[in-house]
Amino acid sequence: MDSAGLFDNISKKRSFLCVGLDTELEKIPSFLLQENDPVFEFNKRIIDATFKYAVAYKPNVAFYECYGSKGWASLEATVSYIKNNHPDIFVIADAKRGDIGNTSKMYARAFLENMAFDAITVAPYMGEDSVVPFLSYNDKWVVILALTSNKGADDFQYHNEDGIKLFERVLSVSQKWGTINNTMYVAGATRAEMLKDIRKIVPDHFLLVPGVGAQGGSLEDVARYGMNSKCGLLVNSSRGIIFADNSKDFDKVSGQKAKEIQLEMEKYLHERNLIS
Amino acid sequence: MDSAGLFDNISKKRSFLCVGLDTELEKIPSFLLQENDPVFEFNKRIIDATFKYAVAYKPNVAFYECYGSKGWASLEATVSYIKNNHPDIFVIADAKRGDIGNTSKMYARAFLENMAFDAITVAPYMGEDSVVPFLSYNDKWVVILALTSNKGADDFQYHNEDGIKLFERVLSVSQKWGTINNTMYVAGATRAEMLKDIRKIVPDHFLLVPGVGAQGGSLEDVARYGMNSKCGLLVNSSRGIIFADNSKDFDKVSGQKAKEIQLEMEKYLHERNLIS
Repeated sequence: MDSAGLFDNISKKRSFLCVGLDTELEKIPSFLLQENDPVFEFNKRIIDATFKYAVAYKPNVAFYECYGSKGWASLEATVSYIKNNHPDIFVIADAKRGDIGNTSKMYARAFLENMAFDAITVAPYMGEDSVVPFLSYNDKWVVILALTSNKGADDFQYHNEDGIKLFERVLSVSQKWGTINNTMYVAGATRAEMLKDIRKIVPDHFLLVPGVGAQGGSLEDVARYGMNSKCGLLVNSSRGIIFADNSKDFDKVSGQKAKEIQLEMEKYLHERNLIS
Repeated sequence: MDSAGLFDNISKKRSFLCVGLDTELEKIPSFLLQENDPVFEFNKRIIDATFKYAVAYKPNVAFYECYGSKGWASLEATVSYIKNNHPDIFVIADAKRGDIGNTSKMYARAFLENMAFDAITVAPYMGEDSVVPFLSYNDKWVVILALTSNKGADDFQYHNEDGIKLFERVLSVSQKWGTINNTMYVAGATRAEMLKDIRKIVPDHFLLVPGVGAQGGSLEDVARYGMNSKCGLLVNSSRGIIFADNSKDFDKVSGQKAKEIQLEMEKYLHERNLIS
């Protein structure tokens, strides 16, 4: 899928919602624990209830790794389930990987080849050769951490050389490694006004915005400062959707939450004349 | 294990060698491919042949993830095998993880709790709350990327604010999060003279030095510029040891290679009067 394909899906679904599948056994409804693979069962029901309102899913790999090889099997089953049933939905491995070239190649193989992920998040600390192995696949994407939504973002991402902050350097240097059809950036929503500065450096790239919902960002501000003429945004919500309820009908409540966000997104897409 | 325990093992074994278990199916002797878990069988034989000369092992997780849930099972088996047979050997998950606090907690659980790793490598880009969850375990360590040995290290790690390079800021800021008994740093060996500058900031911390061997660093230079009064070094070699041969007796050749490095290390420990 390229950038135009993503925008096409956004137009059709009138949504730029990414649902974060950060599934924790401690938080899912207890009746699911009797299932053979409770994490996958939970994800399946969340996906069935939300796919109409979402253009992307983003399992955070940490929540699967913490269950070891079983957790990896749940992750593999989840990606396959999404891709087999909804091939147009964009699936991001939130893995924040990055290593020397021949090692990043192995991570790329794990997520973009052996599993059907469309994209993987990557930490830029180790520079070009840690990122480019992920760019060697057709129609696959790398999502580079630029400005993250956590408090620790202040520790290094604002390190300032001659007026250029580290996250700005990451944006300007790394955009030469790929194109707007295989590179997007993580841009934290807890500081939505920073999206204005980010847009000066990468006007045309897609931005993956975490932190709307439980992490506290405002969707309205994200749309105001981050949207470009092709939307250019995937906005993630995890806990606010998937753990909205833990009754037998938890998935209906999750669907309802996703729909509410979709309707708000539709409004912003309208206001910008991106949909009719 | 604390810093003194590590030095104790170094003194006993007269070695500060870390063997990198970056096991690739394409590179192991073909007769092992008929085994149920060829990766684990290979690792087991490498461990049996090298443990006398090594104080640490470091599987790079990418080489296991690329085989999916099966690869995770090989990783789990490998760590258990080392810890059950050689509880004093330090085992590092070279995972280069790091995410927002509640997510890093899951990675910590995966490696330091569910598996018996003593340490995990962490990328510092997301700052304090992405690293501290790994520091909440007794006798477990975090190994923070400071200066890496790859070409891409030049892209961001030298970003310079008022004379302070990013990797130097990582060293000075992050040493306040933990102690010399739970924090060490990755310091790339391809620029051994940089170890002098690193030692000015972290004189007492252990440094994990990759890149000796296939990546081209000189052990002599690393010892000269990096060693402190408690050795303070773990020097890694992967391909130079584990893929030294691919005959039936590959493990004997690996043992021989490890022994050669151990003997060289013994010499430097002697020269510094760290062993008698």
